[in-house]
Amino acid sequence: MPHSHELTVVEAAQKIRRREVSPVTLMEDLLNRVSRLEPTLSVWVTLDADAALETARQRERELLNEGPRGPLHGVPIGIKDIYYTQGVLTTACSLILADFVPDHDATTVANLKRAGAIIMGKTVTTEFACGDPSPTRNPWNNYHTPGGSSSGSAVGVASGMFPAALGSQTGGSILRPAAYNGVVGLKPSFSRVSRYGVVPVAHSLDTMGPFTRTVEDAALMLNVLAGHDPKDPSTSIRPVPNYLRAIGAQAAPPRIGLVTQYFYGKADDETQAHTDAVAEKLAEAGAAVEEVEIAADWDAMLSAHRVLMTVEGAAVHQDWFNARADEYSPNIRGVVEDGREVSAVTYVQAKRVQDRFRRDVADALRSYDVLLTPSTPTPAPRDLTTTGDPSFQSPFTFSGHPTITLPSGLSEDGLPLGAQLAAPYFADETLLSVAHWCERVINSNLTPPEHRG
Amino acid sequence: MPHSHELTVVEAAQKIRRREVSPVTLMEDLLNRVSRLEPTLSVWVTLDADAALETARQRERELLNEGPRGPLHGVPIGIKDIYYTQGVLTTACSLILADFVPDHDATTVANLKRAGAIIMGKTVTTEFACGDPSPTRNPWNNYHTPGGSSSGSAVGVASGMFPAALGSQTGGSILRPAAYNGVVGLKPSFSRVSRYGVVPVAHSLDTMGPFTRTVEDAALMLNVLAGHDPKDPSTSIRPVPNYLRAIGAQAAPPRIGLVTQYFYGKADDETQAHTDAVAEKLAEAGAAVEEVEIAADWDAMLSAHRVLMTVEGAAVHQDWFNARADEYSPNIRGVVEDGREVSAVTYVQAKRVQDRFRRDVADALRSYDVLLTPSTPTPAPRDLTTTGDPSFQSPFTFSGHPTITLPSGLSEDGLPLGAQLAAPYFADETLLSVAHWCERVINSNLTPPEHRG
Repeated sequence: MPHSHELTVVEAAQKIRRREVSPVTLMEDLLNRVSRLEPTLSVWVTLDADAALETARQRERELLNEGPRGPLHGVPIGIKDIYYTQGVLTTACSLILADFVPDHDATTVANLKRAGAIIMGKTVTTEFACGDPSPTRNPWNNYHTPGGSSSGSAVGVASGMFPAALGSQTGGSILRPAAYNGVVGLKPSFSRVSRYGVVPVAHSLDTMGPFTRTVEDAALMLNVLAGHDPKDPSTSIRPVPNYLRAIGAQAAPPRIGLVTQYFYGKADDETQAHTDAVAEKLAEAGAAVEEVEIAADWDAMLSAHRVLMTVEGAAVHQDWFNARADEYSPNIRGVVEDGREVSAVTYVQAKRVQDRFRRDVADALRSYDVLLTPSTPTPAPRDLTTTGDPSFQSPFTFSGHPTITLPSGLSEDGLPLGAQLAAPYFADETLLSVAHWCERVINSNLTPPEHRG
Repeated sequence: MPHSHELTVVEAAQKIRRREVSPVTLMEDLLNRVSRLEPTLSVWVTLDADAALETARQRERELLNEGPRGPLHGVPIGIKDIYYTQGVLTTACSLILADFVPDHDATTVANLKRAGAIIMGKTVTTEFACGDPSPTRNPWNNYHTPGGSSSGSAVGVASGMFPAALGSQTGGSILRPAAYNGVVGLKPSFSRVSRYGVVPVAHSLDTMGPFTRTVEDAALMLNVLAGHDPKDPSTSIRPVPNYLRAIGAQAAPPRIGLVTQYFYGKADDETQAHTDAVAEKLAEAGAAVEEVEIAADWDAMLSAHRVLMTVEGAAVHQDWFNARADEYSPNIRGVVEDGREVSAVTYVQAKRVQDRFRRDVADALRSYDVLLTPSTPTPAPRDLTTTGDPSFQSPFTFSGHPTITLPSGLSEDGLPLGAQLAAPYFADETLLSVAHWCERVINSNLTPPEHRG
């Protein structure tokens, strides 16, 4: 029988439904683990253990009286501190929102509650989800960055504080920290998941998604999170397939396009060799793997991504920044200051670059189920003054294609390495089913050394 | 039996299908009419009578051999000169595109051809569909403006040169000229109709739609034009209802919200009194009519509309304007020059104003099938140096709600007046069915005096 902190979302939910595990016991176990690890890892901004336990007791009562609310009944989830949580401090780890207590939940948080999940507490983010490092530490090696911006959510899942968490990605803020900490990170298709009630960074890029330890868990989370939200008109009206069922459906080995262009120019030798080895392993298991080029202007992509992020960030922060500029840290300050200098025509041209790049990626995906790239140029850098390099995520955050990172092995230094997969727009079920197939082939579920047992 | 030039689209299509009218005879009759009226009205940029007749002969052969292509088989349609027509000059009435012959059709033009329509020729637009007056004349009184930008399409329908035409609206370019010339103008919901292959003005506003003489014809045209276009990712994936069937379906009298706020502040006394009389007539026929306020910031709407139009226009024209600024007329020049000075943050804030205004209009529509306003502040002004005031269209072009104008009577000076209806977003079938109901009640099919018979 696995320890509480080893349970996946699917396992925990199943054991709770079958009354093999009590939501209260599970929460107590996890809170004990948090007490032990939090002083080193700094995962939490706001954690009210009593409130979490009280919700767990409520879920236990509900289970006995009315049965489970939904597929996540009794499962504790960590929430990045940019998601509004009704009655619970939501700071975005900023001075500006230091005292902000929302009077309503983000739609995604409301969805989780409706599905029976327990909002365990609010996890550390970099300030306003930008590039200023957070106090969170990488559980694999405390001298290496955990990445960002969703650092607390990634590290909490990696260290067994909760089986799943919510993050968000504007540059590389889900998949990069997921890869650096050896967990699964999913960025769904742009406009698949509601952003209502989330402190924005940049509306042309912001994408909400989960951290989990398995692809199956990511699929289950996406089923709860996805769908049209009348409160967020930017969400798609496309119907939501059953992602959990889809992941069992990858019968034939997938067709995988390995993208070395751009990525191998930035990746270190070890990461390149590792990605080649992953591709070979997948091919040996039957996947049709071949190299593919994305016929795109990569420099234009990177600079247009920066334009969208800085301009839209500057618009979000305009009033706050005019009044309280001295309360901003250097990176987010740079975002706002750069964005204010951009002309509207330059911004509109950047949106056009986005449309074009989206088509270029779609063209490359025509003959493949997924594209494969390394998840990061290197393992987590030994540098706490940075959150690492998001440039392996930016292309697909920019294009809006769904991506996932899988733990794929360890570096010579014992740090996690990851494989990033990208699927056609709104083929999230393909992404998940292929990722599930790859996960079994790669077979590399990682647990940080000091946090085993 | 009506004259050829009096036939509606539905009538012409039916008579052709039944072989009561030959597509060739119809085209000959219309070309004769064009010969007579064109010297006064200046509807055409490009009209190749031989080619139009040759297509008519082809349609006649198809009809005999394979049967009708679709619901518009043999019906001549005028096309605003900003729509790409394969192998046919497409100038946008500009010097920049004076020699431009597209190698493909706009999706909408291709749809019309697939439905059997005959592309009769290209109609006059103001330069690049902006505010510089065109040579087209109002058939009701040649000293009054026909409006713009879709002046040729509106006047061609009004004067019986063709039963329907394509226009486009970024400010007030469909409904205003339709009202000034006494015809029906439809601006469908934003993103309902493809914009692929149309010279753009401003992508946040540009909406394609038809001119016709009846609501039924507008419904038939929309059925041919509407739908998702993979070549224009901004088009909605929502299914296309049968609009023609929907217009027969308005059983109960409609609930109509009369909006005097904003509109009556700008309308002259005669227009106000006329609109009140229309509202009363509709109420007498059974409609539930009451005044409603749109709780919006109207000044912010107008200035944000201008920001979107100038910035996006400047982006479209950036390279051309840098190279050939002296070939631009004053109004379009002002659009580009103003747009270049706007900051990206101001632009992004204008997009936010658009989101908010869209919600405000939606709120006002919650208890009504449609909103009713005058179509224009006054009848067509006696001033050929202007295309008139688009400010009664801007709100709904900005919000993206579908609108239609119906001829509703004549001014004391004998000029057409119109009633503008707006429906909830993507309730185009409601708009058309209510408009059809109102059309029968108002009973004001207008024909310019000198063009009767």
